[in-house]
Amino acid sequence: MQILDIETVELIDEISALRIIDQTLLPGEVKIIDLKEIEDIWQAIYLLQVRGAPAIGVAAGFGIYLAAKKISDDLSYDDFYKEFVKAKDYLNSSRPTAVNLSWALNRMDDLVKMNSDKTVKEIKKMLHDESVLIKEEDTAMCKSIGEYGLSLIKPGDGLLTHCNAGQLATSKYGTATAPMYLGYEKGYNLKIYCDETRPLLQGARLTAYELSSKGLDVTLQCDNMVSALMREGKINAVFVGCDRVAANGDAANKIGTSGVAIIAKHYGVPFYVCAPSSTIDFNIKTGDDIVIEQRKPEEVTEMWYKERMAPNDIKVYNPAFDVTDNDLITAIVTEKGIAKAPYTESLKELFKK
Amino acid sequence: MQILDIETVELIDEISALRIIDQTLLPGEVKIIDLKEIEDIWQAIYLLQVRGAPAIGVAAGFGIYLAAKKISDDLSYDDFYKEFVKAKDYLNSSRPTAVNLSWALNRMDDLVKMNSDKTVKEIKKMLHDESVLIKEEDTAMCKSIGEYGLSLIKPGDGLLTHCNAGQLATSKYGTATAPMYLGYEKGYNLKIYCDETRPLLQGARLTAYELSSKGLDVTLQCDNMVSALMREGKINAVFVGCDRVAANGDAANKIGTSGVAIIAKHYGVPFYVCAPSSTIDFNIKTGDDIVIEQRKPEEVTEMWYKERMAPNDIKVYNPAFDVTDNDLITAIVTEKGIAKAPYTESLKELFKK
Repeated sequence: MQILDIETVELIDEISALRIIDQTLLPGEVKIIDLKEIEDIWQAIYLLQVRGAPAIGVAAGFGIYLAAKKISDDLSYDDFYKEFVKAKDYLNSSRPTAVNLSWALNRMDDLVKMNSDKTVKEIKKMLHDESVLIKEEDTAMCKSIGEYGLSLIKPGDGLLTHCNAGQLATSKYGTATAPMYLGYEKGYNLKIYCDETRPLLQGARLTAYELSSKGLDVTLQCDNMVSALMREGKINAVFVGCDRVAANGDAANKIGTSGVAIIAKHYGVPFYVCAPSSTIDFNIKTGDDIVIEQRKPEEVTEMWYKERMAPNDIKVYNPAFDVTDNDLITAIVTEKGIAKAPYTESLKELFKK
Repeated sequence: MQILDIETVELIDEISALRIIDQTLLPGEVKIIDLKEIEDIWQAIYLLQVRGAPAIGVAAGFGIYLAAKKISDDLSYDDFYKEFVKAKDYLNSSRPTAVNLSWALNRMDDLVKMNSDKTVKEIKKMLHDESVLIKEEDTAMCKSIGEYGLSLIKPGDGLLTHCNAGQLATSKYGTATAPMYLGYEKGYNLKIYCDETRPLLQGARLTAYELSSKGLDVTLQCDNMVSALMREGKINAVFVGCDRVAANGDAANKIGTSGVAIIAKHYGVPFYVCAPSSTIDFNIKTGDDIVIEQRKPEEVTEMWYKERMAPNDIKVYNPAFDVTDNDLITAIVTEKGIAKAPYTESLKELFKK
């Protein structure tokens, strides 16, 4: 197995490039790509070569900086800004539904607008530093989640995770995997169990890969083996990421998460949702208001879209996410601290300004 | 999609052949094979071209009859019996762990031993009739389970099943699928949801195939989508088969079954185990005494053993079965009636001679 020894998203200043791992080829091949043109960055996000909401945000920050850097220093602010917005809108079209993409681009845009009195050269320098800051903040956020998560477990624990809320989805540490990486650094001797996560197998292809390539003790299982694992007493806690948390603590995450939560509750295993503050949506009251995307049948019926493994024309149920009700969640681990039920109060308290 | 218009296991008297569908090719190809030589029958069982404990039993009955039929009518009883036992032992070696295989062969052997005063020709006729009877009994058993199961549901219900306890695993109707087929015949307009059942996808390849080819309304989903389905209220009852039921009602079945049972209990969905009396093992007190087979990692890491979809050398947890505790089972549906908790009493009552 090739070692995963580079970061998920990196700015290589010397060659003005965004360096990523092509995640579509994992775990078979670790291919590093240096992206210099804005079209290449757009395509990398569009094709999921870089994926995971936080990682996309970081890539977008570096991407818009690299695009701005190419604009001539001799332009007036207004002419520079026109070019900047064109690049921003273009990058923003790569994955319209990923909230961190527009969040990072808007943050860079705000910076430009607030500094219309500066020279283009000065603005470019500020954009550079801001993009680096976005990544540093993401890393710090993950590390903080990891430290809070670590306070919930003990050396030797068996931990289960679902899908990939790992380093490959963030700038470093991941969210659900952060306690695992930090525990590994501290010699906790954790035993990690990864659900393969059908239909697209992010658990098998990405999580099992990134954790084992870093040296952690990893076991892979099919999604339907969680109950057997817990019945054997192998799991002490579950850590999962999330895509959106409602104000009451209901959490939408990769399909299958709510089933793991129900099984964990049955066996008395604590179930922790790792949620950066950006995923907590106080405008949404409960999980019932979260719209769940249905995806195409071929993800289920054809492995790698190559070989048919179900009858032709069979109807398929293929939601991308599900909602885990708040009463199944032992705690929500954020970078600001650990929230427990009732979440409507505890989350508000944690994030009050 | 090709229609599944023949039976799983058939004796074709006119050509002295055992006719089966090659289940290893489903659902891509419906290939009918006529097996005339004992070596071919042995191979069909060994290669899982015919599979499912009840279907294997029926195939073994026909197989040993066809082998006996080839023995010369002119032999003495003793010489005939020597040849018969040789064929029986050979067939019995095709899958040493399948209990129905030896059960059917021993039943045929007992018949021969009880009739040592008859001519070889007469014995052959009796073997023929007994093998036909084994199949008829299997069909009647499935039909009876179906009728009892049907009493637990109503028209329009959404039913979920896991793995294949279908017609392809029995002579007709299946066990878990029997209420579905009988309901279909009665115009119940049921909506059937099949778990794909990783790692070997018997739900996608066999159950979704056999039910939809007969015209039932079938939807396929990944195993981790059960909770989302139930949260949406789409499932009114779960029917599964089983490999072995302990005296206290704990039931071993395909991996993933116990997780479905836990999720069903959480959502208040009744969970029914369909168990022919042959699977109820009164010698085993609880599920903890049932040994669970661990299977090879490649089933999880390589789809169709062709394409790698997990890191090399990753540790894999791959049990073939799991145990569903009796407190998760709403009822056990047998051909003799419906048992409810406490099962130690109700099962004994149902099967007392």
